[in-house]
Formats: sequence, structure tokens, C-alpha cells
Amino acid sequence: MKAARFHARGDIRIEDIPEPTVAPGTVGIDVAWCGICGTDLHEFMEGPIFIPPCGHPHPISGESAPVTMGHEFSGVVYAVGEGVTDIQVGQHVVVEPYIIADDVPTGPGERYHLSKNMNFIGLGGRGGGLSEKIAVKRRWVHPISNAIPLDQAALIEPLSVGHHAYVRSGAKAGDVALVGGGGPIGLLLAAVLKAKGLKVIITELSAKRKEKARESGVADHILDPSQVDVVAEVMKITGDKGADVAFECTSVNKVLDQLVAATKPGGVVVIVSIWSHPATINVHTVVMKELDVRGTIAYCNDHQETIKLVEEGKIDLTPFITQRIQLQDLVSQGFETLIQNNESAVKIIVQPRLK
Amino acid sequence: MKAARFHARGDIRIEDIPEPTVAPGTVGIDVAWCGICGTDLHEFMEGPIFIPPCGHPHPISGESAPVTMGHEFSGVVYAVGEGVTDIQVGQHVVVEPYIIADDVPTGPGERYHLSKNMNFIGLGGRGGGLSEKIAVKRRWVHPISNAIPLDQAALIEPLSVGHHAYVRSGAKAGDVALVGGGGPIGLLLAAVLKAKGLKVIITELSAKRKEKARESGVADHILDPSQVDVVAEVMKITGDKGADVAFECTSVNKVLDQLVAATKPGGVVVIVSIWSHPATINVHTVVMKELDVRGTIAYCNDHQETIKLVEEGKIDLTPFITQRIQLQDLVSQGFETLIQNNESAVKIIVQPRLK
Repeated sequence: MKAARFHARGDIRIEDIPEPTVAPGTVGIDVAWCGICGTDLHEFMEGPIFIPPCGHPHPISGESAPVTMGHEFSGVVYAVGEGVTDIQVGQHVVVEPYIIADDVPTGPGERYHLSKNMNFIGLGGRGGGLSEKIAVKRRWVHPISNAIPLDQAALIEPLSVGHHAYVRSGAKAGDVALVGGGGPIGLLLAAVLKAKGLKVIITELSAKRKEKARESGVADHILDPSQVDVVAEVMKITGDKGADVAFECTSVNKVLDQLVAATKPGGVVVIVSIWSHPATINVHTVVMKELDVRGTIAYCNDHQETIKLVEEGKIDLTPFITQRIQLQDLVSQGFETLIQNNESAVKIIVQPRLK
Repeated sequence: MKAARFHARGDIRIEDIPEPTVAPGTVGIDVAWCGICGTDLHEFMEGPIFIPPCGHPHPISGESAPVTMGHEFSGVVYAVGEGVTDIQVGQHVVVEPYIIADDVPTGPGERYHLSKNMNFIGLGGRGGGLSEKIAVKRRWVHPISNAIPLDQAALIEPLSVGHHAYVRSGAKAGDVALVGGGGPIGLLLAAVLKAKGLKVIITELSAKRKEKARESGVADHILDPSQVDVVAEVMKITGDKGADVAFECTSVNKVLDQLVAATKPGGVVVIVSIWSHPATINVHTVVMKELDVRGTIAYCNDHQETIKLVEEGKIDLTPFITQRIQLQDLVSQGFETLIQNNESAVKIIVQPRLK
């Protein structure tokens, strides 16, 4: 079968590899669509980061480059391994793409995503969604109803990142959320916040991203920091109170500063983006306002609620799919678009095999 | 009566002023002992900070310099104002020294200490503990049993700061706490943590402060960052897990870095100290470990529980009183000791009138 395999930085190849074995306890999935994540792009341009370099096998998967990429995917079950009785061939599914040690508890309330050596399917080994088929442990396979088109279902993984950030914030319906940055994660997070009944303010510089925030309907207010004083505007919107919660989705220090300044006393600032450098934080404000600055990473028991939000029609993922491509065009049309024209792309989804 | 009054930076005078009026709703307190706080020292050396400068009256108290200083005090009720029926003359009391607008709710669960223009008795006006007498609104007067000597009772205010930091951390009995810095607040916080059943690790450079931490019995481990690798030691002590909670009590960036590195995934870092400059934080670690970095300031409905810990003998405040002086020696013996010999002093307490 065809698969996109990461060999080294700048070297991703579409290759023919054997189909996966559907071992006991796993589910064989015929991949429908797979999104390209910012993380994939980082691996391509600056990696390997999460990907275990050739000759340095990952302690849990035992694999190293070359590995199949892709961790944002949907598909249809084509086979179930021995012992899997609660899922049938033909079921539509998405995957929570974790590689986690077998002895880590993964029940409700467990923060398994923080366990030692955690990695992701499609980065740390165990196949990936940028291939025709994949076999995944039953624990990480989530059934979805046919009400969710399979192309939109490929966005459930990044939407779960937004859901987890929302959960980390402790926000509730009626709260005002300030989202710093209208990139893919900022927009999907905003969609979750709107679905949960919050008032959403997005700050964004890019004209194209502002337009996308407007047309997708996820923001009540869109503020351009080059045109307005963000803190003053938030104070105006909130009656001089400040935002209840804020989400940093840019890894830009100035944005973080604005969020800290615009959040109410006792409020919460969640850092969603991955920073490659330390941040400077006005800790005097953090202390005097008793802010909580919380990190959030990936998801943890978030998929079911995220799937429900989409199944119930509370979130429409259509506006966030900005391009559809075939696997052989992954680098030339996928990565290159994201590198050269990053601002207009939200999610590019890839079809591993023409259907 | 005699009172220590702040006129301007470096200009604190012991003056004769009229006795306070015990107005309706207030309690007249004959001050027994009043501690010198780091904040008082900052006002003396770098102020006015909290103190409203001459000609700029505080929006709630309406007062500006000169103001009477002192906010860590104990005393005996000598008169009660009209309408005060639940406290009697002769009662021993401590004061939660807030200046807060009348329309701010102060019941259980209310975070009244974060309200607009909040200031402190003894800084923002309304008299102070560095005087013979003071009249305080009933809401801010907390009775204490005679089991607590009045000299130790003067330390209940800074101990409440430690209690509030503990509450902010969400820590529970059995947890491991890493306290960065063994100054007055670090030590008093450690005393609260020990009383609450935590295992306490203190990091401290100063030989005198290490000795004080040792003799007061508030630390299970004392680590000197100039002699050991703090993060490696914490990992050894916690079986490679990391501290459950950490408390930054130094406003030194390197200490904050160590706490962030030594806290377990999903753990909490509380910033207790006042920073006069922004901090640099390794936000990548905050994100990947999903840390909560929480500010804490002063106290909020903490006095009753703090008083109980001392009344029940769970905290012995004796070791933290390192000097007793008279009011006329406030600057020459109090502030000067703290400036020149800061490391051996924990709490210097002042007696406004020889008894």
C-alpha cells in the first residue's frame, strides 16, 4: 500500500510498504482522510522532533525513522483483531493517536497523556494516517456516527486539542474567552468555546485569518492588535472586568502579555501553543491578580465529548477544510502550501487512496 | 499616643498623634505586638509603593502620607463601637488588615482581596499596628484564644499569607512540596505545609536561613543549590516523580526555573513572592507537563483556619521571632537590622508601649 514516510528533515517519500497486520486487540482501519498538522510541518522543516531519528528507536514503539506520518485521520473499519468484539467492520471511526506504555492507566480522570515517553501514532511509529491502511489498538479507536462526513471527521483530532484546552481552562457557559491567534488551533478552539456557550474574542493580525474567523462564525469579536488596543477593547467588551479565560495560540510573547493584562483577577490563561523559546511573563500581574497560567497539551479523554459536539451539529467543521489533496501531492501541494501560503490555509486534508 | 508614621522614602518618624475614635461598627484595639514586614522595608527604602503619596489620597481610605505603618499585629480590645455586640473588651485579637470598598462582598468563597483599589491597614491608611491603639472595622478583627501568646499572635498575619499560598496550591496531606527560599514567608509557609501533613523540601543558599529551617523543624529536606543539583535531588526524594507542588518565595529567576523543572507532570507551581521585574519561564515545560503556574497574594478568608492551626499547637511560632524591640527603636534597630543583617532575622516584632 502507499504511505508517506519520514526519512529525515526535508525528506518525506511516498512509498510502497506492506499492509499492517491486524493483531489481537487491534482494529484495521481503511483511512478515508488525514489532515496535515503544524507538527508534521515542523518535522518536515526542522525535524526530527517527535519522530525518533533513524537508529534511536522509541522506547515504547521500538521504531525509528523511516516512519509513516499522519495522526489526524478518519476511516472505516475493514477488519478487527482477535478479542475485539465491540466494534464491527464497516464502522466509521477516528483515532486518538497515542503511543503510551501498556501499564499506564487510561480510564476516566487519568492524565495518561502526561505519562513517560508518550508519543503519537504517525510520529513515533505504529503506522500513520498518511497511508491507505493502519491497525490501531482498540483503546484508541473511537466510533463516530455516519452523521459526520469522513472528511470533517479528520478534523476531530485537532478539535479535541481545542476541547482539552477548554477543559483545562475551567471555563463555563456565559464566560468571556479571549483567544490570542486565529490559526487552525485558535479557530477550532474558538468553535468549541462557542459550542459551550462562551462569548469569544479572537485577536489576529492576518487579513485572511480574520476573514476565516468572520465567515466561520466562531468569534463574537475579532480584534486586530495592529489597529486597536486589545486590552482596552476587552475591558470595553467586558464592562471593565477583563476576560474570564484567555488562550495563547501564537507562541508570540506580545500576545501572551496582552492576555495576562486583559484577563480578570482570579482568571485563567491557558498556553496552547508550543514554544521553542522561553517566554517572558509579567509575574507581578500574575501574583497581584492571582492568575492561573496553565499549560495544555493534546487531549486526554476528550474525544467522546468532542465527537458528540460535532454529531449534535453544535460544531460545523466545513469552513475549516480549505484544501483536499491526494497522497502523492502531499509535499508539493500540502507542505508547500503551508510553507508559502500559511495564512489562508486552515486544514489541508489528504486522501490516501482515491475512492 | 505614639505612632510610627511614613512621611516619605527613608523618612519614618515616631510621632505623637491623637488616639483613634472607636466609631460605630469598629473595635478599639490596644496593640500588643506588631511585626515588621518585608513590604514595610520596601516602602522605607523604595517607597511609597502601597502607601498613597502625599497629596494623592487613596480612593477608599481617602488618606495619603503621612500614614501610620504596621499591618502584622495582635492586641487586646479596649472598646467596641456602637452595633458591635459579638466581641467584648478584654478579648485578644488579631487583624486581617484590609482596606476594601464597602460594597465588596466578603463572605465565604468571595475573593475580596482581588477587588479594585484593595489596600492594607498600616499602608493605605486607617491607622496601623505600629502605634499604641487602632480602631478596626469588626469584619477584619479575628478573636484568638488566650492559648496563643500575644507576641506569637503578631505572626498570624504573615502565617495567613502562607496558608493562602497553600490553599492556592490545592495540595493535600501526603504530597511533596518544594519551597524555593527559606526567608520569613518561605519558613512560615513551610510551617503551614508541615501542619497540613505534607513532606517539605526547602531550597536555600544562606547558612543562617538553612540553620533556622533546621531548628524550626519545618523542613524534611534542606537543599543548598550551591552544593547540590536541586532537580536531581527532588527526583531522588520523590522516586523520579517530581514534587507535587512548588512555591516560589525568592523572586529569583533561577529558583523559578528549578521549581518548574522539579515539579511533576500535572503539578502546580505557586508564585508567592513579589517580583519587581518580569520573569522568564520555560513555557515549553509548562505546556508539555501541563503545569499550573498560579499567583497568590495575601489572604482571603484564611485567618480563621490559620488561627486554629496555632491554637491547636500544630504550628509553634516561637522559633520565628528573632528580635523584640520598642517603637522608638523601629528604624535604628528594626529596619537597620533587616537591611544589614537580613539573613539571620526572621520576624522582628515591635512593642508600641512598654507593658
